[in-house]
Amino acid sequence: MLARHPQGAPQESDFEVRDVPDRAPGDGEVSVRNVFVSVDPYMRGRMSGRRTYVDPYTLGEPIAGGAVGRVVESRYDALAEGDWVLSMLGWREQGLARGDSLHKLDPSLAPPSTALGVLGMPGLTAWFGLVEIGEVKAGETIYVSGAAGAVGSTAAQIAKLKELHVVGSAGSAEKVEWLRSLGIEAFDYRETPAKEALADGIDVYFDNVGGEQLEAALTALRPYGRVIACGAISRYNDERPSPGPRNLGFMVTKRLRLQGYIIADHWDRYPAFLAEVGPWVAGGKIAYRETILDGIENAPVAFAGLFRGDNTGKMLVRVG
Amino acid sequence: MLARHPQGAPQESDFEVRDVPDRAPGDGEVSVRNVFVSVDPYMRGRMSGRRTYVDPYTLGEPIAGGAVGRVVESRYDALAEGDWVLSMLGWREQGLARGDSLHKLDPSLAPPSTALGVLGMPGLTAWFGLVEIGEVKAGETIYVSGAAGAVGSTAAQIAKLKELHVVGSAGSAEKVEWLRSLGIEAFDYRETPAKEALADGIDVYFDNVGGEQLEAALTALRPYGRVIACGAISRYNDERPSPGPRNLGFMVTKRLRLQGYIIADHWDRYPAFLAEVGPWVAGGKIAYRETILDGIENAPVAFAGLFRGDNTGKMLVRVG
Repeated sequence: MLARHPQGAPQESDFEVRDVPDRAPGDGEVSVRNVFVSVDPYMRGRMSGRRTYVDPYTLGEPIAGGAVGRVVESRYDALAEGDWVLSMLGWREQGLARGDSLHKLDPSLAPPSTALGVLGMPGLTAWFGLVEIGEVKAGETIYVSGAAGAVGSTAAQIAKLKELHVVGSAGSAEKVEWLRSLGIEAFDYRETPAKEALADGIDVYFDNVGGEQLEAALTALRPYGRVIACGAISRYNDERPSPGPRNLGFMVTKRLRLQGYIIADHWDRYPAFLAEVGPWVAGGKIAYRETILDGIENAPVAFAGLFRGDNTGKMLVRVG
Repeated sequence: MLARHPQGAPQESDFEVRDVPDRAPGDGEVSVRNVFVSVDPYMRGRMSGRRTYVDPYTLGEPIAGGAVGRVVESRYDALAEGDWVLSMLGWREQGLARGDSLHKLDPSLAPPSTALGVLGMPGLTAWFGLVEIGEVKAGETIYVSGAAGAVGSTAAQIAKLKELHVVGSAGSAEKVEWLRSLGIEAFDYRETPAKEALADGIDVYFDNVGGEQLEAALTALRPYGRVIACGAISRYNDERPSPGPRNLGFMVTKRLRLQGYIIADHWDRYPAFLAEVGPWVAGGKIAYRETILDGIENAPVAFAGLFRGDNTGKMLVRVG
């Protein structure tokens, strides 16, 4: 649970593990043993104590968030012991949830952990951003920052399947190698300035990072370019607001459109997403990776690692 | 004509008046004596020597731009001596143009100078920005910066006629008084920080100014807010790029859309604009002001005055 509001980069000491026994499930409730717990960049905002688009986490309360687990006891008709479910139970080993808040998973269709990654919130975020916010078209060039992350790696591959030319950046040689193996033109932003890597110009920028990458993308964008403002992980630990891009004036002269979105507003598009992306994942046309740490006590380590780029693909904590 | 590229604020010494006799009009050509010459903020970018969305002005060449004048000699069938015409002849007393590049004006419908202001490029810019970029809706609150300028004053009044709640800022007590007389909630940004004036929140920001006003607007914007990125006059004289807004992260958390446009792309919408806005101007529902300097030698003074806010409404130079 959250012990104090992180200042700058989250520290292990900002969190506490507590042993709290659950009561037995009441009518309509289900007891779930978590197997995979999700840590996601957006959680940083909820830890600040300030209300943004979603309520802040309360000190002394468990961190809510996506989790995948198995039913251990059910008093809800549609779920039975052993069923795999997606929940918002968050950072805990076991918890109680209303049955109607759980989404049953079929482990024969896809590994249950993918419900937290390529076929879950990050996957929908990637697809929705490309299709609805960026309105990407075949033949365009797109730049994806954070391209080895959960959202970025899915966005880069969907864009490629939609016949865009895809340039991606990541923060290590291994990540760059993985991206290249997927047919993505990738560079290590710690080695190559984005401004150089994007010198040929881009039509769309899928922004997971903000800061310098956004500034470089604004310079590289061609007239009528779009910015899919998905996130700004380089900025989430800022202790004071740092200046925005010096070249935002390009917005006018290049007629750019910059648009933010929050995927929680768009779960109604999940079936359309699954219809298009599900077969690509099942058929191996979209690859995914997971970086898994073991033990609930490592949730803060996994979470803090997101901001250091410790993960390739989806960062998960395996519990129980 | 442009003698040198201005550094920072344009100086009179960046320009030169030269006496160059015109030849007689050839077949299809028209000789026009200018009456009103337009100075517009966008011209600053063309003086930089760098290509942006439009070719830069060439040193030693006259400044092209909007002008209204009368035909003195015509070898083009559809125009006769004495006709009022809108041209792109720019900063000169008299000039030759191809007849098919001129737009004939009917002085019985509206004073010819309005073809450079409320019924011309600035008016279309205001209307198109509201309708197509901002997609404004009745009942919304809009903030217009530079609200006493040619574009801003038109935008503010159109928004009011479309039943929005309109807040406008300007840089003097006189301008604020004029805006208030038009039913616009106005404040002097030199006296009141925009952040305070906008504390109740806004849905749309019509940005003519950039810089601090943009930052204040990003803070004030409600979820799903839009920024109509029309211009950034506070920045055009910057000698080096200055940092952007520190709160651009709101783009994601508040799901904002920021979009730039260049009205030169949208002249095809002029008839639709005129159909809606023409009757409002004719009927006195949209007021307009003009700040007029006399003599072509004062074009640089008028132009530099745009960046000091010397104008209320459209800035014009009367010649001949």
